[in-house]
Amino acid sequence: MAGDNDTEKLRRFFVEKINKPTTVLTGNEKKHLADVLRAKVGDKIILCPNDGKDYIFEISAFDKNSITLYYEEEFVNPTETNLFLTVFPALLKGDKTELVVQKLTELGVKRISPFISEFTVQKSEKNDRLKRTAHEASKQCGRAIIPEIDDVMKFNDMINKLADYDAVVFAYEDAFTNGNRITDVVKGNERNVALIVGPEGGFSKKEVEEFINRGYKPVTLGKRILRAETASISATAVIMQLCGEWS
Amino acid sequence: MAGDNDTEKLRRFFVEKINKPTTVLTGNEKKHLADVLRAKVGDKIILCPNDGKDYIFEISAFDKNSITLYYEEEFVNPTETNLFLTVFPALLKGDKTELVVQKLTELGVKRISPFISEFTVQKSEKNDRLKRTAHEASKQCGRAIIPEIDDVMKFNDMINKLADYDAVVFAYEDAFTNGNRITDVVKGNERNVALIVGPEGGFSKKEVEEFINRGYKPVTLGKRILRAETASISATAVIMQLCGEWS
Repeated sequence: MAGDNDTEKLRRFFVEKINKPTTVLTGNEKKHLADVLRAKVGDKIILCPNDGKDYIFEISAFDKNSITLYYEEEFVNPTETNLFLTVFPALLKGDKTELVVQKLTELGVKRISPFISEFTVQKSEKNDRLKRTAHEASKQCGRAIIPEIDDVMKFNDMINKLADYDAVVFAYEDAFTNGNRITDVVKGNERNVALIVGPEGGFSKKEVEEFINRGYKPVTLGKRILRAETASISATAVIMQLCGEWS
Repeated sequence: MAGDNDTEKLRRFFVEKINKPTTVLTGNEKKHLADVLRAKVGDKIILCPNDGKDYIFEISAFDKNSITLYYEEEFVNPTETNLFLTVFPALLKGDKTELVVQKLTELGVKRISPFISEFTVQKSEKNDRLKRTAHEASKQCGRAIIPEIDDVMKFNDMINKLADYDAVVFAYEDAFTNGNRITDVVKGNERNVALIVGPEGGFSKKEVEEFINRGYKPVTLGKRILRAETASISATAVIMQLCGEWS
């Protein structure tokens, strides 16, 4: 779904670093641009060194193993959120964690920190695969920063990290009758929010107590039993909207 | 993610109708209960005749081709929303429309009305398959009403239906710079809301004009280019939260 601005239609490449006025692409990026996309001299592309800016370059030459690009202009990418939202999703079975990473990347999340807890069935995940998913989704949705993907951590390490945030949304499926509204926790003026979503089997009683003992209130996402991946995607969208990122 | 209430853990079966005090299950439901779930005499299940209520029955006898159930009690299922949200998603490629139907069912949508528009690539969809997905998702998330799935309709038929709603959320990817916030359209006190999400390629200029001519404002879902299925799921979650369904 491209926009009116012409630069939105240019291909986007994340690179380690750029040089001005000329940057040389090699390896996979070179292959992709030359062999898959069949780019030509004079075509323009966007290079993103993951610094929040888009750098427009024009292709000036093809060599056997490299493509030479010439710098044209740069600007701050407008798609990044002001909100720094970190999502802690419990690992899910099959390719569900990948689905979560793809959707959260589109929704503007800055960091994804998967964890395992007592009822987690899927005990490990290829971090490289999640990073690739975040990379691809960032290109596709026009971001200039790829969300950071942490290594899978244990429940205790996850919960210790929550002290760093202005607001902590602990999504809990039994919260409907005795829990809090998401607006009780997220006021809309936070800059640093954490969202935690448990695995398919939910959190154990002990884990729930651990959240509550540390002052993190269980938050309801409505009356139905959401699948874990639906909970992550839905709560992320709602937090973004509440914090003004849909304005 | 089951709750504290014991009835939440009972198996849920949607049936054409129930009889009191005895209902007889045959066909697939009988097979599923007997052969797959290996239910026993004395087990309790929930029957849902799609009227918003849960009816608890106890298995009293197995026969070769049927299972006889005895009525115990009934109550209004607590998971249904007060909001009547209809989502009009353009048909999507592959199994994306099924993903949308599954997630919207979990989120409490009452009706899903797929349509094709100028840029829709996928031109048809097996309505039966979408109905089965809605059925399965309703069972899984504890609903007592399966969302209605309409036959695929044309753009013009879709847009003609919008006059029936209190609020119309026309999600449009170019709305960020010149569009409206979702809270400009959804005030939170509506009972009858429509959400429209275009296909992968978006709406044509002519289609966008048609919405605007009829007074439906383009609404932004943030600054990034959301995939169509992400837009449907995210906007549904936000509308539910704005209308008090996460309270």
